[in-house]
Amino acid sequence: MSAYVPGLQPGPGQRLVKLNTNENPYPPSPRALKALRAAAGPRLRLYPDPACRELRERAAEVYGLDAAQVVPGNGSDELLAIVMRTFVDEGGAVAYFQPSYSLYPVLAAVARARVVELPLPRDATGLPVPRVQAGVFLLSTPNAPYGTGFSTAWIESLLASFPGIVVADEAYAEFADETSLPLLPRHPRLVIIRTLSKSYSLAGLRVGLAFAHPEVAAEMAKVKDSYNLDRPAQAAAAAALADQAHFRANRDRIRATRARFSARLTELGFAVPASQANFVFAATGTGMPAAREIYAGLLERRFLVRFFDRPGLDDGMRISIGTDDEMDALAGAIGDLVRR
Amino acid sequence: MSAYVPGLQPGPGQRLVKLNTNENPYPPSPRALKALRAAAGPRLRLYPDPACRELRERAAEVYGLDAAQVVPGNGSDELLAIVMRTFVDEGGAVAYFQPSYSLYPVLAAVARARVVELPLPRDATGLPVPRVQAGVFLLSTPNAPYGTGFSTAWIESLLASFPGIVVADEAYAEFADETSLPLLPRHPRLVIIRTLSKSYSLAGLRVGLAFAHPEVAAEMAKVKDSYNLDRPAQAAAAAALADQAHFRANRDRIRATRARFSARLTELGFAVPASQANFVFAATGTGMPAAREIYAGLLERRFLVRFFDRPGLDDGMRISIGTDDEMDALAGAIGDLVRR
Repeated sequence: MSAYVPGLQPGPGQRLVKLNTNENPYPPSPRALKALRAAAGPRLRLYPDPACRELRERAAEVYGLDAAQVVPGNGSDELLAIVMRTFVDEGGAVAYFQPSYSLYPVLAAVARARVVELPLPRDATGLPVPRVQAGVFLLSTPNAPYGTGFSTAWIESLLASFPGIVVADEAYAEFADETSLPLLPRHPRLVIIRTLSKSYSLAGLRVGLAFAHPEVAAEMAKVKDSYNLDRPAQAAAAAALADQAHFRANRDRIRATRARFSARLTELGFAVPASQANFVFAATGTGMPAAREIYAGLLERRFLVRFFDRPGLDDGMRISIGTDDEMDALAGAIGDLVRR
Repeated sequence: MSAYVPGLQPGPGQRLVKLNTNENPYPPSPRALKALRAAAGPRLRLYPDPACRELRERAAEVYGLDAAQVVPGNGSDELLAIVMRTFVDEGGAVAYFQPSYSLYPVLAAVARARVVELPLPRDATGLPVPRVQAGVFLLSTPNAPYGTGFSTAWIESLLASFPGIVVADEAYAEFADETSLPLLPRHPRLVIIRTLSKSYSLAGLRVGLAFAHPEVAAEMAKVKDSYNLDRPAQAAAAAALADQAHFRANRDRIRATRARFSARLTELGFAVPASQANFVFAATGTGMPAAREIYAGLLERRFLVRFFDRPGLDDGMRISIGTDDEMDALAGAIGDLVRR
């Protein structure tokens, strides 16, 4: 089997504008950093709270849930793996759209599950809910790498027609207008997966959160490692959630930059699906240089974006939303390359 | 399926001498704490190094390996789970001694594997190597909960007779006279699993290390989450490994305390298997109160040790080695209870 290939992480000496793995350009909450420093003491010799009580209570408060509905994970990747181990038997089936998060086929291979891949059009407006039999549906919403979101109503239709567990993989949902969260109280087959990596600027901390019906959450908690979140991560994540003002300010800045940058790309001739995430997918139009060439030209100019070298995606680039200054500089560089 | 039940973690308000989950009584290296504080900065917005390069190189140096032989994990529990996912198919078999680490049956259930449980006598001197067919042998050495170690020669015999992967689960090996490490260069079917939780006083950080043949390590790395270790944990663990003087001083103190405390227990009438770990198993003899009663009496006196309420183990207690003062006070309390 093939391993998941993460985006390039430049070495310490490489100075690049890094817009390839959807990190948040703004620093984490000072309260999170303070909590992390406070964790650097003699109590580190003791095991962390296996129940992650403080973090779960803070998340429950922020998202209007009961703490029994929250399962914290070592990044949302671990939570996706836990869902697979909880709900997919060997030889069972997993459904997902193609393209979506490129970890899904790897998770399916690890679980020795069959995959049902459904084509996702770049413009998913009016897309009918698929009729498919599988144990789990992995729905990346907003979708990676296109950035397009599924509406709450569409996800509810999927829950009505799909017989298994629907995983709303909402890694980017904090940047979206709509999410599946309002559906949770009446849909026990819905598992929502969030992460603090992007919206809370904590990719380096590895904290994800699953929201589910209490009984589903309890099943998932059984399968997870007892001590899956270390003390510093639990403390810093709880402090980050408590600082909603910091989170909202950065989210709003990124949404505003996303709108400005999307408009610039459209002016330059790119087709840009309406993004609900902290990245955009920029597809080249006729008469423009190939996306592969633009990607290479940007790398020469010290801009690192994401190029997927495979059919169906190699006409575009996925570009994370950085600061306004970074995106202005990038738009300038793209303009030079496109107009040459 | 039943979840693994970790040892009790007292709440913040409970003042107990905590000797139930084999934590190190001494604080972590000041260099590790400094590295953790240094990680509390703006770079936390960036993903960690998925390859954990610095940590792997430091571990390779300390243990005389190549960095390609080291797979870091989110605690040794994650590494055990990775071994299962890498080497055990659904319906495949896993062998282990009973008793040993109580996580093994849970891992087998998650992997939907058959289990082959082999009885482990309390005194394993002269124990023949078992003849058994399975994909993986999970060998807890030193054994939990008895503390007894398997010699290097015995483990080599097991490798010669057992056809699958032998996992030397050496969570406590830093406190032992012998380990399986010298066998690694000539045994590609050996996977060694260590942890920084006990010997480096970093239970709160969740860092384990697997040592294996480079090809086996590469297979395991494929199955692990890309970003399984967060930035603070990678930095602090590398710094802890670099401080060998701190580690050795604490290890030596714990070994000395273990010898003293074991002798005291023997004087009080307990049967104590010769421990190679940072805990001892104290079995009650004839005419003594039941272990359950001693456990309850100790809890009343604010000493928390581990009592396993199941046949074959309920005649004793597993007691972590704390400081000399803690163990003297505990021995006094046990003496009171035994002599009543």
